[in-house]
Amino acid sequence: MQIDPSPLARPFPAMPAIAGVTLRVARAHYKTWDRCDLTFAELAEGTSVAGVFTRSACASTEVEMGRDDVKNGRARALVVNAGNANAFTGYRGREAVELIRAQVSAALGCGAGEVFVSSTGVIGVPLPKDKAQAGVAAALAAEPCSWEDAAHAIGTTDTFAKGAGASAMIGGTRVELAGIIKGSGMIAPDMATMLGYIFTDADIAPAFLQEALERANAATFSCITVDGDTSTSDTVMVFATGKAANARIDSWDSPGADAFAAALADVCRNLAQLVVRDGEGAAKFITIRVSGAVSDDSARRVGLAIANSPLVKTAIAGEDANWGRVVMAVGKAGEPADRDRLSIAFGGVWAARDGLPVEGYDEAPVAAHLKGEEIDIAVDLGLGDGRATVWTCDLTHGYIAINADYRS
Amino acid sequence: MQIDPSPLARPFPAMPAIAGVTLRVARAHYKTWDRCDLTFAELAEGTSVAGVFTRSACASTEVEMGRDDVKNGRARALVVNAGNANAFTGYRGREAVELIRAQVSAALGCGAGEVFVSSTGVIGVPLPKDKAQAGVAAALAAEPCSWEDAAHAIGTTDTFAKGAGASAMIGGTRVELAGIIKGSGMIAPDMATMLGYIFTDADIAPAFLQEALERANAATFSCITVDGDTSTSDTVMVFATGKAANARIDSWDSPGADAFAAALADVCRNLAQLVVRDGEGAAKFITIRVSGAVSDDSARRVGLAIANSPLVKTAIAGEDANWGRVVMAVGKAGEPADRDRLSIAFGGVWAARDGLPVEGYDEAPVAAHLKGEEIDIAVDLGLGDGRATVWTCDLTHGYIAINADYRS
Repeated sequence: MQIDPSPLARPFPAMPAIAGVTLRVARAHYKTWDRCDLTFAELAEGTSVAGVFTRSACASTEVEMGRDDVKNGRARALVVNAGNANAFTGYRGREAVELIRAQVSAALGCGAGEVFVSSTGVIGVPLPKDKAQAGVAAALAAEPCSWEDAAHAIGTTDTFAKGAGASAMIGGTRVELAGIIKGSGMIAPDMATMLGYIFTDADIAPAFLQEALERANAATFSCITVDGDTSTSDTVMVFATGKAANARIDSWDSPGADAFAAALADVCRNLAQLVVRDGEGAAKFITIRVSGAVSDDSARRVGLAIANSPLVKTAIAGEDANWGRVVMAVGKAGEPADRDRLSIAFGGVWAARDGLPVEGYDEAPVAAHLKGEEIDIAVDLGLGDGRATVWTCDLTHGYIAINADYRS
Repeated sequence: MQIDPSPLARPFPAMPAIAGVTLRVARAHYKTWDRCDLTFAELAEGTSVAGVFTRSACASTEVEMGRDDVKNGRARALVVNAGNANAFTGYRGREAVELIRAQVSAALGCGAGEVFVSSTGVIGVPLPKDKAQAGVAAALAAEPCSWEDAAHAIGTTDTFAKGAGASAMIGGTRVELAGIIKGSGMIAPDMATMLGYIFTDADIAPAFLQEALERANAATFSCITVDGDTSTSDTVMVFATGKAANARIDSWDSPGADAFAAALADVCRNLAQLVVRDGEGAAKFITIRVSGAVSDDSARRVGLAIANSPLVKTAIAGEDANWGRVVMAVGKAGEPADRDRLSIAFGGVWAARDGLPVEGYDEAPVAAHLKGEEIDIAVDLGLGDGRATVWTCDLTHGYIAINADYRS
């Protein structure tokens, strides 16, 4: 099955090389396809690492090992397998990951715990050890490749390659960040997995890198949803090689800490939005701004309740300014809300204010807004200062077609 | 727009008259349709009442008043308006409800708090007072009607009339229960509202009636989902006229208490399943049995996470035994689960056992099962004795068509 690029796709951006990072790709033939499906990133000695992982209670072996090893804060390599998620494969899946780690650590002369592995694709089938080892050997011998090559190689049912870059000044030193991500194209029986990797030449202590990533994650990857489903393998990692030789950042008081954190959050936000733009069947990109909540976290949960509502998502697909469905979604969020203080706007036009439809509400500009590709919904709860922005896409026949009509 | 009956529809059952209950319907013309859209149930003096209501933070006036008044335990009348939910209409919506209550209480010579009102339909438009009052007057003057007439009159976008009955022996006295329900047909911009009413001639103290209803609700209406969206108006009420003259039940120790509670739970289960059978676009009825959870409540939450997963629902629509998506849904439920103890079956055939695909798993009987209309998914978590059964339907192009393609 050939899928056209999402109508919301973005071209792959120009991104600089990151000193201390060498990318290579190879064909492991995890599926019967002729494409690179194994990605290998070699990282300079002294690279710091941080990571956030799925909260699924049924996480893959790769996630469990990664979650443990980031605590040591050191990385020398990343291997990403596409086409097989190696999830729900028990001890047989674990063996393959351990072999990959042993092979890479032998080649680089590093500890096995400095080799991070991710896998994405079909679940319930143990990652084939022979294919993985031949793939790693091929990658070790391959010529270095581009960000775009790597972004393609980590993809499964993605319809376009996704990357985002940024830079920041730390003291007088310019540092670069480059990230790639895959996610949101799902075809039965594959999983909806988001795997994102950000690389920087900045010198950052692992504990601070973890803190900055968690803070960025809370406002970006934790604020997107396509269908409310959470993969067993979701992973976002940051690798900092230190080759820019800036004054090392080890706390929020270090010069440049805020600038670096802002650049990291920028990359995360851009990558997160690209995942939504590749949502199955997506025809409209929806931004939901919630204000007036009792806390930022409450605002985020209200936003996600709206973003995950099939009734809201189908209304947007139908270009219908159905604010009644937004009221319903706010009501079911399980967060403090008061019907008589609730206000709702589409494209900046308030349809309801303080619990009542706006008198003389003109639907014409709202109807025009809803015909576009970028939809803006604002909700004010009128209770406090909490706010959050959440991104999602509409729910269309394309989603059903991708997930129900075609079988593997 | 004419909608065909759901392929999962059931014929309306034969149900006996309930002594002390008189049903009448009338045309209030809440919409530009020529059908009865106001239902009036007159209840004998001394009728006990119990109710469960939506947990939406944006509940309608009708829900707020009903929730207060059931605490008094007495009812003389029920009025159901179809075509206008009167939700999100502030003080203007409240006036119409108060006028209806005053009109009925004057006619019956009862307190306004003994008149229960529900409304379902479009939201954000205050219920028109003149239409409501003319409708109530017409209903008061109308001939009594049948259960099926009333089941049609409370419906909005339902594709078939839904009812269920049961009987029980209390001491030597036979009591009858009859229930009607509407819900799950949704057309923009209407709301997904479930309104259910059960009538019995049994003599039951209000406090016990409430307890029995809450217990039944937890295992029936709280265990169904079509799309995870919760209406601002969901309501289930039970009215007990006492005309059967059984020995009054006022606690679980009263003779016949268990038998009555079982009959009530039967009616609730049947009504709940009928709502799922009228789910928008539903082509398959899905039963999800969860066992081995740490508690019954945990099992229910795991079941609902599976039932609400768009990826699971589209897999069933595609007749795909995609147990990987069930693993994903279990993992995201936020409940205790252990990947390596998880077992999953379709139609009684185990596809995965204790965290591993079953060796030599034969997909042929499972594929045959999935081609049918009644789908059975079993999940064993292997942790404890908690169990629950949850019902849902598949997610098809029909859902998108009903909720996105057609505009009001």
